[in-house]
Amino acid sequence: MAAPAEQVAAEIENLKVNGGAAGGGVQEDEEDRVTPWEVTTTKATGIDYDKLIVKFGCRKLDEEIIARFERVTGHKASPMLRRGMFFAHRDLTAILDRKEQGKPFYLYTGRGASSGSLHLGHLVPFIFTKWLQEVFDVPLVIQMTDDEKFLWKDMKVDEAKKMARENMKDIISVGFDPTKTFIFNNFDYMCPPFYENIVKIWKVVNTNQARAIFGFTPEDCLGKAAFPAVEAAPCFASSFPQIFGKRNDIPCLIPCAIDQDPFFRMTRDVAPRLKASKPSLIFSTFLPALTGAQTKMSASEPNTCIFLSDTAKQIKNKINKYAFSGGQQTVQEHREKGGNCDVDISYQFLRFFLDDDEKLAEIRENYTKGEMLSGELKALATQKVQEIVLEMQERRKLVTDETVEEFVKVRPLAYKY
Amino acid sequence: MAAPAEQVAAEIENLKVNGGAAGGGVQEDEEDRVTPWEVTTTKATGIDYDKLIVKFGCRKLDEEIIARFERVTGHKASPMLRRGMFFAHRDLTAILDRKEQGKPFYLYTGRGASSGSLHLGHLVPFIFTKWLQEVFDVPLVIQMTDDEKFLWKDMKVDEAKKMARENMKDIISVGFDPTKTFIFNNFDYMCPPFYENIVKIWKVVNTNQARAIFGFTPEDCLGKAAFPAVEAAPCFASSFPQIFGKRNDIPCLIPCAIDQDPFFRMTRDVAPRLKASKPSLIFSTFLPALTGAQTKMSASEPNTCIFLSDTAKQIKNKINKYAFSGGQQTVQEHREKGGNCDVDISYQFLRFFLDDDEKLAEIRENYTKGEMLSGELKALATQKVQEIVLEMQERRKLVTDETVEEFVKVRPLAYKY
Repeated sequence: MAAPAEQVAAEIENLKVNGGAAGGGVQEDEEDRVTPWEVTTTKATGIDYDKLIVKFGCRKLDEEIIARFERVTGHKASPMLRRGMFFAHRDLTAILDRKEQGKPFYLYTGRGASSGSLHLGHLVPFIFTKWLQEVFDVPLVIQMTDDEKFLWKDMKVDEAKKMARENMKDIISVGFDPTKTFIFNNFDYMCPPFYENIVKIWKVVNTNQARAIFGFTPEDCLGKAAFPAVEAAPCFASSFPQIFGKRNDIPCLIPCAIDQDPFFRMTRDVAPRLKASKPSLIFSTFLPALTGAQTKMSASEPNTCIFLSDTAKQIKNKINKYAFSGGQQTVQEHREKGGNCDVDISYQFLRFFLDDDEKLAEIRENYTKGEMLSGELKALATQKVQEIVLEMQERRKLVTDETVEEFVKVRPLAYKY
Repeated sequence: MAAPAEQVAAEIENLKVNGGAAGGGVQEDEEDRVTPWEVTTTKATGIDYDKLIVKFGCRKLDEEIIARFERVTGHKASPMLRRGMFFAHRDLTAILDRKEQGKPFYLYTGRGASSGSLHLGHLVPFIFTKWLQEVFDVPLVIQMTDDEKFLWKDMKVDEAKKMARENMKDIISVGFDPTKTFIFNNFDYMCPPFYENIVKIWKVVNTNQARAIFGFTPEDCLGKAAFPAVEAAPCFASSFPQIFGKRNDIPCLIPCAIDQDPFFRMTRDVAPRLKASKPSLIFSTFLPALTGAQTKMSASEPNTCIFLSDTAKQIKNKINKYAFSGGQQTVQEHREKGGNCDVDISYQFLRFFLDDDEKLAEIRENYTKGEMLSGELKALATQKVQEIVLEMQERRKLVTDETVEEFVKVRPLAYKY
């Protein structure tokens, strides 16, 4: 039966956006759009993460698993974990089992550098990953996807590589242990064991499936279809023979923002066919943009964004000028009705970065009651963000090209298995 | 305007098989089908190469350019060149200009190993390439596409790598100069400079174009779309910094069978966008299968095929039993009507491998007149093929794993530029 071409086109579009029944698919509903290349919602409270859990088919990081995490590791859950900034997972249980049994695993995270400096949002998974590295005491590999940035952006290879190098310095400043951390950019690390895993992934995923998962179109360059395997391959330990030898039975745990899930849904699908362990994942929400939780903080929109290279004054100005407020129009009205922490970006920043639970609860209460004004809340957020950024900047000063060399050197890590 | 879905599908099919106006496209007419993965015709005289020249848009290797080749190199054209087994080219003139001006260039050829031993058909481009290496005195790079074989065939990575290694020994036995020849298999050579060129190619070709050029479908695995860039990248000198440093202005000449043209049409299209030299090409016809020129000799059909590992007896038996004859049904009829050299496979083998022009002309004349019988022609072909295979086998005995190491070692070649 002949369907009109428009209908065919519409069906392809549908497949692209919602994914096939089997493929999982790029997910969205009327309001939320979450893909590796776009995160938007129409709601001032941000993405509906509970809905996302159902759609992506991952699991909520509930109290039960957090309690088990604390028992197994002997560490109290970090604020980002207990406050739900890390809110979902895939197979975290498998990693906790291995920790309990003393079996090896590793951490894998990454970054696509599209700006010379990290911003506050980028910091979230790295701060959490550093904490996981301390708690688990396992090796960590960090992929810089300079090839992805080259493919997606109007950027030269050398620019992409340079940006990756610059970003490495910011990442190193988070405080990773050089004896247990390998940082690599794809353009410089590409090697036979890595490539072999990439080709193996290429063999078991077809173009239709990639289109369903990632939404690529036939007008997209070949690299966009080839790239997902490059982000997937570090999930397999044999991509790092210098660390794990030829073993492919050492799984990894990936702390990342939820938008990266399509890559790893694909990886988890293909792992059994490669006779390799499936990666486990632990997903963060997005640090909202200054201008509101409808978008995540993004380096390509500098006014929505606090860079780690910003001065204390710039931070103060940006928060004062742009940070979306949950307060009322007038002081009088605010005192009467109170503020809304759920949409207030200053409060959201404190939720991510202020460790003191009691103080945070007190701020929430005071602001909601209208006892605290927006200006006061902004001042608190400014102070906290300035403190974090300054701390990073102080550590960044100590990171030289030699420090970077130490992390990128292809070498065994301090790790027993 | 809405066109029926069937029409849309038919247009896509059309694009796929005949290629877009810009893309060049996989070529065929009613009778001939020539793609990197399939070569067939319905005609006993084999592919119509003149038609192919028009369709592929390459140029005939005519007397004029052969004469210039002889003048510039100071060498008489080899039998394969003067008899039209190498019959077409792209921009060979540019390479002859460089030779005349003393400017650098290199040779690039390759092989996808799908059998443990090379067959006689595989030998053709290598024999010719060796001659070119001597005549031009330039470096040669030989790519073994073990990744391609892994992607296309039901084969494990280790099997593909092992086959590539075995085939290298056959190739080395042709007599390449180890100081001027680098042989590599993709799985073992993959490295940052090579990968960088691959990613650059990925960026400037889209899925539609790849489909038009190579005929891939959305059901094909991602690797099939990713691979052409891997075969294209060695056209750019910077894929081999150990030989050429960072220079991308050193072009290559690629001696290969005409079915590989789609890869290099693509490469020539993208080269200017990568600010790299376009490769030049010189194309061979196919050595026909024993059973007739409707297909090329193929390792996957052992009875159509003489392997370099065959014994003298096997060669004799195969030619006697399978070699398609242009002779008549009875001796009497043959004496009267004469034989047809154009479809006779024994004669075709002699045309490829018998250097002596006079003797070949004499054989043609005698057979055409019916003075020579099919049995006699088969005996001559058997003798020549046995001689070539034996010679290869003698040299093959001297090729050890150490010899292979010498050729695959990443190293500078003896070359001034």
